[in-house]
Amino acid sequence: MPRYKSIISYDGSGFSGYQVQPNKRTVQSVLEAVLTKMHKGEPVRVSASGRTDAGVHAKGQVIHFDSPLHIPADKWERALNSMLPEDLSVLSVDSVPESFHARFDAKGKEYRYILRLSQKRDPFQRKFAYQYPYPLNLKSMEQASKFFLGTHDFTSFCAAKTEVEDKVRRIDSIDFTLKDDLLTIRFKGNGFLYNMVRILVGTLLEVGSGERSPEDIPIILAHKDRRLSGKTAPPHGLYLWQVFYE
Amino acid sequence: MPRYKSIISYDGSGFSGYQVQPNKRTVQSVLEAVLTKMHKGEPVRVSASGRTDAGVHAKGQVIHFDSPLHIPADKWERALNSMLPEDLSVLSVDSVPESFHARFDAKGKEYRYILRLSQKRDPFQRKFAYQYPYPLNLKSMEQASKFFLGTHDFTSFCAAKTEVEDKVRRIDSIDFTLKDDLLTIRFKGNGFLYNMVRILVGTLLEVGSGERSPEDIPIILAHKDRRLSGKTAPPHGLYLWQVFYE
Repeated sequence: MPRYKSIISYDGSGFSGYQVQPNKRTVQSVLEAVLTKMHKGEPVRVSASGRTDAGVHAKGQVIHFDSPLHIPADKWERALNSMLPEDLSVLSVDSVPESFHARFDAKGKEYRYILRLSQKRDPFQRKFAYQYPYPLNLKSMEQASKFFLGTHDFTSFCAAKTEVEDKVRRIDSIDFTLKDDLLTIRFKGNGFLYNMVRILVGTLLEVGSGERSPEDIPIILAHKDRRLSGKTAPPHGLYLWQVFYE
Repeated sequence: MPRYKSIISYDGSGFSGYQVQPNKRTVQSVLEAVLTKMHKGEPVRVSASGRTDAGVHAKGQVIHFDSPLHIPADKWERALNSMLPEDLSVLSVDSVPESFHARFDAKGKEYRYILRLSQKRDPFQRKFAYQYPYPLNLKSMEQASKFFLGTHDFTSFCAAKTEVEDKVRRIDSIDFTLKDDLLTIRFKGNGFLYNMVRILVGTLLEVGSGERSPEDIPIILAHKDRRLSGKTAPPHGLYLWQVFYE
């Protein structure tokens, strides 16, 4: 059956995360309901590059699905968008070989975390950036971030309940961009564990506020103990920005 | 009784406009409910520089209210924000003479209308910019906008049901800024009639799409007939940006 790869974007505010859960509005369930309707009730499964949590946004999540419908790839985008709610959009649909898999073929991902460094509330950013009203030392945050680069066991930086066995991941870059009061931290790597980016950000914030020093990072990494790292930063500042394939 | 001037900002998406209406969530009713609560049930009235319609946003709406509470001006901001919902924020509170009036003392206003010129849907902009997917000739829109500058009778460019007698207003500037796919049109003037900015934008779009020519504008102005101007652009692209006082 023909397989399609699709890049999608969603405002995570109104979803209980990506993955199907009973009686919850999730990205996967909305997508599957629309595809199933297009297939006259025949269930269609969607596979994503990975889950995102409740409240987490996506600018470039990647999914794949199979369909026997004779629809050219360039017509799929419009057909899906005409049926999808406004907080979930299809950005592109492409034909791919039947061997393509959104999760297993992903070679890496980029996440961005957006902080709003201000004491003033902003009604327009409240769901799209994490307001942080205290002073931050960006230089020590950048210093601390260097210790995350390369290949490490990130047991200390993922949710304690993470089920995957192998917690070794490679982070290729962590960049900081400050524009007006918005601080964007971009993470690129070969893969990220459950809550990993949010715990990295929470820990970097504790360095930036002076509660910890950059040199604490290698020690925390070495201990492989979630209790030693920082708080999990809230979901609404986090964006799955893009997924890389060969 | 001491009078306070306050600059407020709101995401208009969740409000049925500024003004109190029975059984509707409006900006005024939320503000007055919070102030009344702070005054232990004693009703407090709020006066604004003007109304905004359902769905219209504000980055710098100005209100005033009177209060006998012994709260220093700089503590008011925090006190109000702690009780206000997240889609409505107080940006500043200042003591003003009892003669100050948010509406009668306003010398001018700036509105901005934000268009997203793209065929792609964007879940993050859906409530904050009007998506316009067709080609636009910006040059002819700018030419057309010149005819609005200065003092004119804007009867053709306000809602037919506008009750105010005098429909003469002065527009001081109309600026266009294109950044990525966002076109911002800034209007500054001494006052704007009901739906005026949205009708100006709707008419400029019809010039930009080639349905009308810039030279139609002076003719439409001269006829003082709402039926001759363009459609009313949707509210969610419109922002009351700031209010000017002496």
